[in-house]
Amino acid sequence: MKNTFGNSIAVTLFGESHGKAIGAVIDGLAPGIDVDEEKIKMYLSRRRPSMATDTPRKEPDDFRIVSGVFKGKTCGTPVTIIIPNADLRSKDYEYGPARPSHADFAAHAKYHGFEDYRGGGHFSGRITAAVVAAGGILLPALEKKGILIGTHIARCKDICDRAFDDHEKDIASLQTKMFPVLDDEAGEKIYETIVAAGEDRDSIGGITETAVTGLEAGLGEPWFDSVESRISHAVFGIGAVKGIEFGAGFEMALKRGSEVNDQIRVEDGRYHTLTNNNGGINGGITNGMPVTFRCAVKPTPTIARPQQTVNFITGENIEMTAKGRHDPAIIRRICPVIDSITAIVISDMLCTRYGTDWLA
Amino acid sequence: MKNTFGNSIAVTLFGESHGKAIGAVIDGLAPGIDVDEEKIKMYLSRRRPSMATDTPRKEPDDFRIVSGVFKGKTCGTPVTIIIPNADLRSKDYEYGPARPSHADFAAHAKYHGFEDYRGGGHFSGRITAAVVAAGGILLPALEKKGILIGTHIARCKDICDRAFDDHEKDIASLQTKMFPVLDDEAGEKIYETIVAAGEDRDSIGGITETAVTGLEAGLGEPWFDSVESRISHAVFGIGAVKGIEFGAGFEMALKRGSEVNDQIRVEDGRYHTLTNNNGGINGGITNGMPVTFRCAVKPTPTIARPQQTVNFITGENIEMTAKGRHDPAIIRRICPVIDSITAIVISDMLCTRYGTDWLA
Amino acid sequence: MKNTFGNSIAVTLFGESHGKAIGAVIDGLAPGIDVDEEKIKMYLSRRRPSMATDTPRKEPDDFRIVSGVFKGKTCGTPVTIIIPNADLRSKDYEYGPARPSHADFAAHAKYHGFEDYRGGGHFSGRITAAVVAAGGILLPALEKKGILIGTHIARCKDICDRAFDDHEKDIASLQTKMFPVLDDEAGEKIYETIVAAGEDRDSIGGITETAVTGLEAGLGEPWFDSVESRISHAVFGIGAVKGIEFGAGFEMALKRGSEVNDQIRVEDGRYHTLTNNNGGINGGITNGMPVTFRCAVKPTPTIARPQQTVNFITGENIEMTAKGRHDPAIIRRICPVIDSITAIVISDMLCTRYGTDWLA
Amino acid sequence: MKNTFGNSIAVTLFGESHGKAIGAVIDGLAPGIDVDEEKIKMYLSRRRPSMATDTPRKEPDDFRIVSGVFKGKTCGTPVTIIIPNADLRSKDYEYGPARPSHADFAAHAKYHGFEDYRGGGHFSGRITAAVVAAGGILLPALEKKGILIGTHIARCKDICDRAFDDHEKDIASLQTKMFPVLDDEAGEKIYETIVAAGEDRDSIGGITETAVTGLEAGLGEPWFDSVESRISHAVFGIGAVKGIEFGAGFEMALKRGSEVNDQIRVEDGRYHTLTNNNGGINGGITNGMPVTFRCAVKPTPTIARPQQTVNFITGENIEMTAKGRHDPAIIRRICPVIDSITAIVISDMLCTRYGTDWLA
Repeated sequence: MKNTFGNSIAVTLFGESHGKAIGAVIDGLAPGIDVDEEKIKMYLSRRRPSMATDTPRKEPDDFRIVSGVFKGKTCGTPVTIIIPNADLRSKDYEYGPARPSHADFAAHAKYHGFEDYRGGGHFSGRITAAVVAAGGILLPALEKKGILIGTHIARCKDICDRAFDDHEKDIASLQTKMFPVLDDEAGEKIYETIVAAGEDRDSIGGITETAVTGLEAGLGEPWFDSVESRISHAVFGIGAVKGIEFGAGFEMALKRGSEVNDQIRVEDGRYHTLTNNNGGINGGITNGMPVTFRCAVKPTPTIARPQQTVNFITGENIEMTAKGRHDPAIIRRICPVIDSITAIVISDMLCTRYGTDWLA
Repeated sequence: MKNTFGNSIAVTLFGESHGKAIGAVIDGLAPGIDVDEEKIKMYLSRRRPSMATDTPRKEPDDFRIVSGVFKGKTCGTPVTIIIPNADLRSKDYEYGPARPSHADFAAHAKYHGFEDYRGGGHFSGRITAAVVAAGGILLPALEKKGILIGTHIARCKDICDRAFDDHEKDIASLQTKMFPVLDDEAGEKIYETIVAAGEDRDSIGGITETAVTGLEAGLGEPWFDSVESRISHAVFGIGAVKGIEFGAGFEMALKRGSEVNDQIRVEDGRYHTLTNNNGGINGGITNGMPVTFRCAVKPTPTIARPQQTVNFITGENIEMTAKGRHDPAIIRRICPVIDSITAIVISDMLCTRYGTDWLA
Repeated sequence: MKNTFGNSIAVTLFGESHGKAIGAVIDGLAPGIDVDEEKIKMYLSRRRPSMATDTPRKEPDDFRIVSGVFKGKTCGTPVTIIIPNADLRSKDYEYGPARPSHADFAAHAKYHGFEDYRGGGHFSGRITAAVVAAGGILLPALEKKGILIGTHIARCKDICDRAFDDHEKDIASLQTKMFPVLDDEAGEKIYETIVAAGEDRDSIGGITETAVTGLEAGLGEPWFDSVESRISHAVFGIGAVKGIEFGAGFEMALKRGSEVNDQIRVEDGRYHTLTNNNGGINGGITNGMPVTFRCAVKPTPTIARPQQTVNFITGENIEMTAKGRHDPAIIRRICPVIDSITAIVISDMLCTRYGTDWLA
Repeated sequence: MKNTFGNSIAVTLFGESHGKAIGAVIDGLAPGIDVDEEKIKMYLSRRRPSMATDTPRKEPDDFRIVSGVFKGKTCGTPVTIIIPNADLRSKDYEYGPARPSHADFAAHAKYHGFEDYRGGGHFSGRITAAVVAAGGILLPALEKKGILIGTHIARCKDICDRAFDDHEKDIASLQTKMFPVLDDEAGEKIYETIVAAGEDRDSIGGITETAVTGLEAGLGEPWFDSVESRISHAVFGIGAVKGIEFGAGFEMALKRGSEVNDQIRVEDGRYHTLTNNNGGINGGITNGMPVTFRCAVKPTPTIARPQQTVNFITGENIEMTAKGRHDPAIIRRICPVIDSITAIVISDMLCTRYGTDWLA
């Protein structure tokens, strides 16, 4: 479905970095969900460039909701959010030179030269603002149903944030932080690492960790609607994500069964596992433990250093030093995007299971 | 879509481990594709338990194609493959005790006690035989179009196979091996590691690496039909997979842009990158380099050791030692499954892009 | 989705008229639904040729359920029903001559000569046996939830059955009839009309009328998941159906608003309309009145008279007189097919709205 | 998929009659298709109220394309068209009274009182402006590929326009007419009939006929992607359509096979049928003849006469005389809507069959 994701709740993304606007259509929202523009603004502010770790491009993100909301609540029909593009410097972008590790060359091959190449066009991280705006509706709605979603920077270079521990409390603490880490000391070091990379005219990647709490056991489907299938499908929509692992993931793969099997206990009729190496999912179905996953976020490809590349119009090898504005790292700004995209998946799964009115 | 995956080519899986049969319906195959039952048998034999590393359950996999094939070729209508279940010992399975890290408890929560729990039912690895049978049609068809897919055991415990190097040659070499590694010496050590775990009444996981060659630049879509989205969606259908990374994946996330950006060169009009840290995909679109990814396969949950768990019927904590037959590791047998599931994704993507007749 | 229909409940059809078997996979059925093989047999018997109005081909319809059912109930995973083909006389069919108004020529154009042409292959009405077998599970399940579906022959040539009046009672009366009419006298005349056409080596069409009762107001979606959109989509899967109208349909189109608007009344808190010209649907959404629609069923194309046609292999004009067995009319046998296909649509809509467990 | 239709090309509709804007996202358009805003305006002008037969609401339809178009051509990414609502008189609409035969009551049942009820909200014919804008891109693109689509008023009350005869010429002639009929004398009488109904404070329905020429044999799929299934699915998205028939449809159902079978001939290697009672479709697949269908359009429900209805807020029976602006008939304005919606279906089918780049 290209730019659309979801069944009961389906989100369609549109827009180019330097076009008139970007936006999203969110279809299938139950009627009666609160749409609080202040909350949407708050979520957008967490994604917006604002620190030395971010691109200097300043976008006010003055979104407008043009359909689907009536008297402050969803009316059950598609909610359309438009975010005009404001701070454009399209002249920074030349057509032909392929920025290494960017989609320029792949897009040229796909769109045969008709692509809007300015600022990465439809491939730009700019489009994630629309995802976060959607999250600004879904995340508060899920919270009302007792479902919390939070993402923090788990690692940058050699600096690790602490892992989720008391998941609900940890997620709550992340809501107010512009720099989403659980351990603020680690956060400072990560911040410095990023700034140092930027000052070095370089960029840097990182690993995020996400937790979803409040999900009952029994959600998801075997095979192709497994919780892992659906979350990974959505998360890999973000171009910068190059890996995902659930629970203990790759580490678990190197262990023996006796070391990583999640043993189960029941207490007062409530089931839980002693460890959560499966990330809350068995056979694609939730088991009642927090759903946890980690994403590998590659370093921003754009760096202000000379790189070997090609001009695919002239067909020549060239050397290129990036001019456009860019982030030394997106690991901070990607956290609310992953929260939002996870909220889309989880809402969709829940409304498929419990019915289209469930979320209200 | 639960048990169905794909658009232009759609595969529907069905069956339970101890039911009458398992199978697959493959819809959307172009008319005129060769269906060579010997090739299907060969692929199935690579998945079938046959070594000391595998379960003692012996299934002849006597598949029958009951629709969609006429005079040895696809006729354009749904191809249905049925594989009867033969070697059943359902009495090994008791209802109530939840095998740790298996889907028993999650399935109970989802299906409210109506699930066919025998041998894991629909969650059993047994169902992957149907996937491999589908691969037995798709993989040869793709090969005729110059597209090769191969998967090897990249790592088990601390033993690493060498990485893909000359991809096409390496993939070719894997076709004939019952133990799919590129370096046979490493293979022997991996084999021994698995057997040792089994003898120790334990199990072990591993990491696979898959490569797809022959794909043109320009395949896939931005956002929700990214190549990563679709491959991960399908691969996470396999319950044992807990992580996936494309190209350099998690390793790349810990590097700086200047270290991992794939610089691009053109030679005689052909574009290539000097490294392939992006795994042949930028912005969700192929760039003409081999598509590569690695999967984290968790250790088989079933182990012949006592484990703490619950009986969800009686609501009591119990200790349980597995009785049913099982594999000390599935890392060998999962390779043809990943090949086949990747073939489904790639065929679907190509037929979406080039039209429904393309694969013939 | 070609041979698959539905979201929450998805049915995939497969098989060719003269292949090994036909069948269906029904995915998404809630766990715990009764699967009564006697009921499935009963529904199949209503579709099976048995009268002078039907083809002499005798198929025992010895179906086998090979997955998804455990201890007599659905287990929540895909239910697969296989119906082997038994009474084959493939030699009646020659490749090249296109039977007029059949799919032979269109199929040849689509499948480039690889189609299984024997007896119409995948286009044969034979495949509807699988639809009816699915109906044999869904119709009783819906009935338990208070939802009744019934179809009668509304008209054949100039003879009209009476319209639905007391819908629930009328539907109940149809359950036991091998010749599905509300007025048995009209039924006799219709029967004679069909037999006369057959004796005249000709065939005849007809119009069916279907009613669905017990649906709450508020089902369906505006635009592309309107109740009309989904029912018509599914019903037009049957090749013989060439028209559909909801409520007063085409007749309504020739009237003034003041003549056909359904005026609304409330009595004891229950809303109803004084007429039901909209067939229980406004703006694509149910309004609580019975959903009613009529289908135009074309005469069986196969007739034992000489017809002008072509041999698309030799590229010549020919004259052709049908040899294969065929029905002088399918208007009787299509009624349980429409019931079943409607049951698929309605179940899917309800489970989408109320959740995947709703039907059990 | 609620407000989204299509696979290779998918259109998502949004907006309410009295909200800020309506619009459409068109995803999957091949890169390089001309987007001529003058042509879009022209198509919109054919749908816009302009005659005595239409509502007095005047909407300038000042659409804006905010994504997916670059340098006058599609760039391959989602094209988003926004049409602001201008001429609003929301005070004409009171909440509670259900206009008979409108979606008011059904929408209330579905959305539990949260619906934007003003002017019918999302159920308003206003939303079809977005469909027509999409048609303004697709219809010229199809025309360049030799595929023509045209719809005329076939009948209103007892007055019949002549049927399509020389389809291509007839379709061409319709392009320039504000009153889409093939026989202008019949057109005048239809016009007068509509105006008379309006003067009588009443409304009137009608029947449209659509033809699609230039389609090769072999398009479509058996069963659930039959050409009839897809066209009917899309067309029934329009709330006013209550019936559809392909070819001779309901009339054919009352005939014998010998009377209506389309006999086939070949001349100079080109196949055609002597009649086209099947409307260019056999077994769901095109046969190379023009695809033709007729739609039953119900009379506009809103009439300025007293009608019996209910107030679903107070739960009382009331009498109601419509105040809002409305059309005495929409049969004229619906023609470009059906053209556009058919263009969506046909483009999607063709791009599915021939690949995503086909339309450019």
